[in-house]
Amino acid sequence: MGKTDWKAKAKALKKAVRRLQGPKSGAPAAPTPAKATTPVSPLAPAAFPDLPQIAGVEFAAAAAGVRYAGRTDVMLVRLAPGTSVAGAFTRSSTRAACIRDCQEKLAAKVPAGSGAAIIVNSGNSNAFTGAAGQSAVRAITDAVAAALDLPASRVFSSSTGVIGEPLPFGRITGKIPDLVANLSGGGMAGAARAIMTTDTFPKGAAATVTGEGGEIRIAGIAKGSGMIAPDMATMLVYIFTDAQIAPPLLQKMLSRQIGDTFNAITVDSDTSTSDALILAATGKSRAAEITARSPAAKPFEAALRSVMMDLAHQVIRDGEGATKFVEIRVTGAISPQDAHRVAMAVANSPLVKTAIAGQDPNWGRIVAAVGKSGAEADRDRLSIRFGDILVAEKGWRNPAYREEDGAAYMLLQDLVIGIDLGLGKASRTVWTCDLTHRYIDINADYRS
Amino acid sequence: MGKTDWKAKAKALKKAVRRLQGPKSGAPAAPTPAKATTPVSPLAPAAFPDLPQIAGVEFAAAAAGVRYAGRTDVMLVRLAPGTSVAGAFTRSSTRAACIRDCQEKLAAKVPAGSGAAIIVNSGNSNAFTGAAGQSAVRAITDAVAAALDLPASRVFSSSTGVIGEPLPFGRITGKIPDLVANLSGGGMAGAARAIMTTDTFPKGAAATVTGEGGEIRIAGIAKGSGMIAPDMATMLVYIFTDAQIAPPLLQKMLSRQIGDTFNAITVDSDTSTSDALILAATGKSRAAEITARSPAAKPFEAALRSVMMDLAHQVIRDGEGATKFVEIRVTGAISPQDAHRVAMAVANSPLVKTAIAGQDPNWGRIVAAVGKSGAEADRDRLSIRFGDILVAEKGWRNPAYREEDGAAYMLLQDLVIGIDLGLGKASRTVWTCDLTHRYIDINADYRS
Repeated sequence: MGKTDWKAKAKALKKAVRRLQGPKSGAPAAPTPAKATTPVSPLAPAAFPDLPQIAGVEFAAAAAGVRYAGRTDVMLVRLAPGTSVAGAFTRSSTRAACIRDCQEKLAAKVPAGSGAAIIVNSGNSNAFTGAAGQSAVRAITDAVAAALDLPASRVFSSSTGVIGEPLPFGRITGKIPDLVANLSGGGMAGAARAIMTTDTFPKGAAATVTGEGGEIRIAGIAKGSGMIAPDMATMLVYIFTDAQIAPPLLQKMLSRQIGDTFNAITVDSDTSTSDALILAATGKSRAAEITARSPAAKPFEAALRSVMMDLAHQVIRDGEGATKFVEIRVTGAISPQDAHRVAMAVANSPLVKTAIAGQDPNWGRIVAAVGKSGAEADRDRLSIRFGDILVAEKGWRNPAYREEDGAAYMLLQDLVIGIDLGLGKASRTVWTCDLTHRYIDINADYRS
Repeated sequence: MGKTDWKAKAKALKKAVRRLQGPKSGAPAAPTPAKATTPVSPLAPAAFPDLPQIAGVEFAAAAAGVRYAGRTDVMLVRLAPGTSVAGAFTRSSTRAACIRDCQEKLAAKVPAGSGAAIIVNSGNSNAFTGAAGQSAVRAITDAVAAALDLPASRVFSSSTGVIGEPLPFGRITGKIPDLVANLSGGGMAGAARAIMTTDTFPKGAAATVTGEGGEIRIAGIAKGSGMIAPDMATMLVYIFTDAQIAPPLLQKMLSRQIGDTFNAITVDSDTSTSDALILAATGKSRAAEITARSPAAKPFEAALRSVMMDLAHQVIRDGEGATKFVEIRVTGAISPQDAHRVAMAVANSPLVKTAIAGQDPNWGRIVAAVGKSGAEADRDRLSIRFGDILVAEKGWRNPAYREEDGAAYMLLQDLVIGIDLGLGKASRTVWTCDLTHRYIDINADYRS
């Protein structure tokens, strides 16, 4: 297979070793300087939204140097006594220690009387770190519990970043006094920045609902850019509301809305070991308690859904290397499972995603992706649309379709690909982005 | 979302339209000049192998200008009377007209007395071309049947290339007289070139077995580079042998060996609409007929497997943009299905593949891919190896593992990633390649 170029190999080796700066004696690596800023995604919103303060929620961020120096990388959230907490988490069988800890604590259903807290770090995911990983979670959540006078069972933690490296948790616990001192109701934007990894912009969204006797506010933040194919959960997402609502109903609404929002997005088909969504309701609004039957229940759930959808779409708009925001609408499937299978086969097809990156209306690759999905499909009933343009139907290209029209459509930044299977009534919409050189740039180098 | 740069858009539009050169009136587009040659894959074998002639098989190639001018793009194979034919085909629900035609003809079990033929074109896959696609298959196979005095039911065809464009079949049928005139037992290498699309090298493999009373030869050719994730079949592969063997046994051996060879490779997780493998046995060897119980049956099947494996590996070595040939060995799974699921989740993970492209021993991404696979896995029993290097076990990095060793290993061209789930006895080995900038280059432009 050709001669080995040893000189080139040696050079690459040297570079690789230099990059690794491997911890040699078990001591955590010193923080490296934060990388040169990646250009902001062309799909980013014009500005971070003006998030309302949520009564009963305070934020603080700090630079702990978990992995990178010169940036904030820890956020702390304090939640007032009486706060209901709900959550959704990755189903990865290799999920991180903090995910397991959150799941156990939520399952224990500790009364909300005492308040609660969330602590999150970026730079290290504490995933696949064995028993030491569990100890690190305990050390961090115990320290927060002590500092805020809370039971440890009400302190939730998340970690995001490199997998398999020991978490230098002392750097985090060392910052807790500062974090506690700086807690403020207006700190949500700073918190959104502290949890970023390869994200090119911080993500926030908000909504307001009129309840019985007062306004109810919802505001949330998220991080996510790569390793995005949530499975019953999402990236890191924290949503806060001042609604009064019991934990079981809050959880029910969250679980109901996650399928069409965070579980309907994919950047690269890779599900993270650290996906987590925590939803906290402080009950500080003047509006009456929301119960399953109260008139505000539906509007509140709709507003919650809108915040979730907005954040989920922002994650796709910050997909690693993304230049196109793509909606895949599948209709006419014989079952919701089949509709999902087709939508995800198209959304995750490297050939479809590279065609979109090349602004090529290559609908043949969409046909191939439908064909490989395993879902029931009939070539002669299938139809494909770019936006409103009918591209193909009845087993062939629509005679009225002109490739110039498809080519012009592909130049848009936001695309809608419609796929009707013509077999049944089930449908599914998912969102994805294109696959570009920048994805390779980011991931052939970044340690995640 | 920022201001629109209309000038840039207009430019891109102009370029896209120019590229498309869309057929406007239903007439097939004129052939465009063949593209500048892509550099040969760094993983390519040093040279095309010296394939033996197979008695009873003749080849011819021609330049029909199906899509590109200045290159051969049609091959014809004539098989002697008495040839047994077996096949394996894509299970895509949107498979091409020629695939359906081959499947029907093989199912009809026409006696082999009359001989047979195979005609293949590159440049256009005749997939998703409706009733016109079926007519094109009929026109081509009927013309070959007439020219070679064969029943049409013994003429098999394949097409590979762009999906959804009408196949200009007249260009192919117009070349049949030339093809017939040029048939020769020594034309296999030329045939291997004629079926290439984005391939950077032609693929061939051969083996010889000692039968009872004489030698048995096997030789085959393949094409494949992208849209590679075969599902019960493969790219285009044609394997010939002079063995005497009845069609049912030939088919049985083929079906038995396809799982571990062509169905164990993936370049990009995209299954083609045109995958086909045709295996023909002319019976011209002096060796006695192979039956299920004859002593030559096992050696023959082993030799057939070796040719299939060699060709399957060559397809990966020519994977679009590949710089690494990667074997994924999964052991310790509770079922073969789980082992396959884990192996393919790792082999198709864009994050694993980009890490390999970057020569980064990023085993955390392997853990994440195992976790997302849906297979049963236990973090604390999982172990991961790079070649012989034990990287991680018991839920954490092996304390003796040094990242420098992993980094040095990743510089090799051929890599073996070992994943032991520690749960059962099932195993699965699959092959893949890395995901590089060249994959994006090739696929953001090429129409397939």
